[in-house]
Amino acid sequence: MILQANDRYELEFCVSDETYKGFLATFKDHNPLHTNHEFASAKGFQGMVMHGNILNGFLSYFIGECLPTKDVIIHSQEIQFKNAVYLNDILKFKAEVIGVYESVGAVEFKFDFKNEAAKTVAKGKIQIGILS
Amino acid sequence: MILQANDRYELEFCVSDETYKGFLATFKDHNPLHTNHEFASAKGFQGMVMHGNILNGFLSYFIGECLPTKDVIIHSQEIQFKNAVYLNDILKFKAEVIGVYESVGAVEFKFDFKNEAAKTVAKGKIQIGILS
Repeated sequence: MILQANDRYELEFCVSDETYKGFLATFKDHNPLHTNHEFASAKGFQGMVMHGNILNGFLSYFIGECLPTKDVIIHSQEIQFKNAVYLNDILKFKAEVIGVYESVGAVEFKFDFKNEAAKTVAKGKIQIGILS
Repeated sequence: MILQANDRYELEFCVSDETYKGFLATFKDHNPLHTNHEFASAKGFQGMVMHGNILNGFLSYFIGECLPTKDVIIHSQEIQFKNAVYLNDILKFKAEVIGVYESVGAVEFKFDFKNEAAKTVAKGKIQIGILS
């Protein structure tokens, strides 16, 4: 199998204005937590909270573009959002292969995203299939 | 609590060319499964497979824009991808409240997406917090 247990990956993602606006334009989630500074502040946040599903978009890029094979498809994902992500945050992403199931051609990763203060903003697992 | 057990929601989403191109431009996952008809066909699919995380973007819209309150934030999500989604597929989305945890202000939903052939393309759970 081209992917092996304990393989590790590290990437950096920026929740840039372009990413934020691209997500908003594509999915039209204009909830005030994500679009209104005053609303988000009143709820106890430092500013507009970026959509958690922007991080799921980064996962798509990781699986689709950053593995040693392009013959992959996502089977399942789970993610827990632990701390707010703000505009222009630079996130360090780490993933590690935690399971390789050769008989069914599947590979499982755990991952986390940390912000510049080294706080975990999200973590989870993702299972992929290797396409033959 | 504004959300109650067994509350149900139904929406329709189209994986339009605009959605597909918006996702591609935002997250830059150009894996050939998603961008090359011949590659996807050779892997046994009817055509280019849409990114699974487009459905997670639709979930963002559902939670952010379609509930009876805007005071919400996503805590966690899990999704299983069961069947391929293709360009211009129209997906029926159903969600149901399966747990209300008043003491911590959290609500859990289960959801599924079905295509026009009534095949489940994805299902999962999502837990949100109600912001006070």
